[in-house]
This record gives sequence, C-alpha cells and structure tokens, in this order.
Amino acid sequence: MKIITISREFGSGGRELGKRLADALGIPCYDQQIIEMVAEKEKLDKNYVAYQSEKDVRNFYPATIARGFTRPNYAMLQGVQVMAKEQEMMKKLALESDCVIVGRAGDIVLADQKPFRIFVCADETSKLSRCRARAEENEKLSDKEILRKCREIDKRRASYRKLFTERRWGDAAGYELCINTSGKEIASLIPALCSYIEQWYTEAQKDS
Amino acid sequence: MKIITISREFGSGGRELGKRLADALGIPCYDQQIIEMVAEKEKLDKNYVAYQSEKDVRNFYPATIARGFTRPNYAMLQGVQVMAKEQEMMKKLALESDCVIVGRAGDIVLADQKPFRIFVCADETSKLSRCRARAEENEKLSDKEILRKCREIDKRRASYRKLFTERRWGDAAGYELCINTSGKEIASLIPALCSYIEQWYTEAQKDS
Repeated sequence: MKIITISREFGSGGRELGKRLADALGIPCYDQQIIEMVAEKEKLDKNYVAYQSEKDVRNFYPATIARGFTRPNYAMLQGVQVMAKEQEMMKKLALESDCVIVGRAGDIVLADQKPFRIFVCADETSKLSRCRARAEENEKLSDKEILRKCREIDKRRASYRKLFTERRWGDAAGYELCINTSGKEIASLIPALCSYIEQWYTEAQKDS
Repeated sequence: MKIITISREFGSGGRELGKRLADALGIPCYDQQIIEMVAEKEKLDKNYVAYQSEKDVRNFYPATIARGFTRPNYAMLQGVQVMAKEQEMMKKLALESDCVIVGRAGDIVLADQKPFRIFVCADETSKLSRCRARAEENEKLSDKEILRKCREIDKRRASYRKLFTERRWGDAAGYELCINTSGKEIASLIPALCSYIEQWYTEAQKDS
C-alpha cells in the first residue's frame, strides 16, 4: 500500500503538492473532503464539522495545563469528537486504497501503515507571494499581516500534532522527505518526487 | 553551476550519499580531501590540519561566552586559521566546477552560489546498524555508547554551524531537501534523488 501523508507550513504549497502528487500517481488525495465525508457519515452539518475541525486545538486543554485536571467543557468535547471521527475516517480511507492525505497529523494517525511522510516548507518570500496569489480580490493584508497569519496557523498545526506525539512538527527525523518549495513551481517538483516515492516503495517491497 | 552541499547526522549515511550522488552526476565529491588539499597548499602537516579541523569548535569561544571578551588563545587561533583555509578551499573548488561538498557547513560557506542543500538524517536503529557495520574489528561499543557518540558528534556539527548562522542545524527550512535514510540502502535512493536535482536545476535555469 502507498499511503503518503503531507504535513506543511501554511503558504508552502503543500496542499497543491499533495493534489498534484496524487494525480501523478493516479491515486486519490484527501484533504478538505474528509470534513464532508465525516459530515455525511455522521449526519452532521458540514459547516459544523469544518468549524470544529479548524478551531484551535489549544482550546482543548488550557485548563488541564494551567491548573491541573478540570472537567472538560462542552466545546472541548465537541472538538475532540469531531477529531476522533476524522481520524476514524482517515484510517478507513487508508485501508481502502493507496492515497495521499493532506494535514490532520496523518503521519501520526496512520503510523501503523508506515506512510511515506512528507513535510513541505518554504521561506517567507515564497510564502508571501503564494498567499498573495491565492488571496481574494478584497483581501488586502500587509506583508506583516500575512506572515503573522502564516505563523499563527503553523502554531495551530504544531499544537494539533502535539496532542498525539512528542516529536516536534517539522523535525526532519519525523518524515521520509522534507521538501523546500521556495521559489519553485510545485508542478516542476512532481515528476522527480514521484520517482523518489516509487523507488522507495520498490525498495521497501524487496526488504519485506 | 551545480553545487550540492550535504549536511548530515552522524550515522545517517550522508557521506556515502554524497559520494554516490557525485558519481551518479559525474562530478567530484569533496569530503576529507579538503583537509589534504589545505595541507598541501599551506605546506602544513596533514595530521595537524585534520586535528585542527576536527577538534570541537566549542573550544573556540567558551571564554567569550562565559566571561565576556577575552584574548583568544593560541589553540583557538590555530583552529580558526585552519577553518578559514578550509573555507577558502571550498569556495575555490565550488568556483572551478560542479561538485558535491560534504560537511563543513558548506551550505552556509557557499551560500553565494545558491547550492542545492541536502540534510541527511536517520532514526537511532538505523544509525546503530550503520555504525556497527563500519566499526573496526576491535571496536566494541555498546548501543548506548554508540548513540552517545552520535549525539556528541552531532552537537559538534551543530556548534560549528552556529559560528556562521543563527539558523538551526537540521531545520528543514534551511535545506532544499531533507532525506531520511532509515532502513534504506543509500544506493537505492540515488537515481530518484538525481532526477530531483536535475529537474530542480532545469527549472532554476528557466527562471533565470
């Protein structure tokens, strides 16, 4: 089975890389669809799942950290429940077929299936131009504001990961490959990345 | 120009990767040879250069850190001089032809030439088996001792790097690619890595 997980810094083009990689390998890519799938399966409103899924996980546990154990509140429980449903869905998808999973700590959640774990990063200049290129017409943020937003989202992602592992988000040893997309068209990286992954799996089969 | 720098954790197979990559690309790989070249050019004893080159750079600056500025001692000066000569040599080599440079903070020293920067890492199991495979017959270290040695050497490398940059050794954003060699034969990673680098440079030429 080829299960490829993508962790990525905000603005690094990681989502596009996941999508293009999946297309090139001829396998599905799951990203936001996981939210829709969970909503459908659990008969929940899509926006509710998306909201629960995207809210800052640091809200789940401030009280336990600051003042020892406390009763979980309702908002915490909702977030944790949606997270659990998403993880269940990811595991189901990863058992059904080869796939690329973007975000949601897929590398940790699917650890049993020994995924090929990719981390995508980029320098600030590249993040800025990527964020500007995909910004809405009416979105007028300064460079400083964009970079603050990038850092804030990355912090959230790091916190989410921290719920499941001690290993630091973005620490090279936790991934098969870390890819720096600075100044690169994502499309241009795909063919060689594909061969890298194909060879990696050929070798893995020889070993087993 | 294709200048490829390899930074690596001790026991990750980074040196082998550099050598094999250079062979596959048909360009020279400079590693320990830099020591011999400096010795020859400066008419110094090879062992002296090797000794100065490998001693812990943390010896260069403990006094300045612990007690404010102090007169550099002779041992510090010798180390710094050899380091400067090595860097001069690396710059000369990188101007002469495409090449792979292993270690010695090549990524920082040669920054002006925009090298393709690789970081090689591995998990502890892989480091252990790699270190055991290359150990001398009479070298009988326990697993714990080997891992302590790995960490000690890595610390030295991180300190060396810290002389020139604030960017953390092994931080993914500081490299084009971080490669995890855990459980892999280095040779098996080379063909795809080659294509990755070739494509990266093709794209870079298009941009310029």
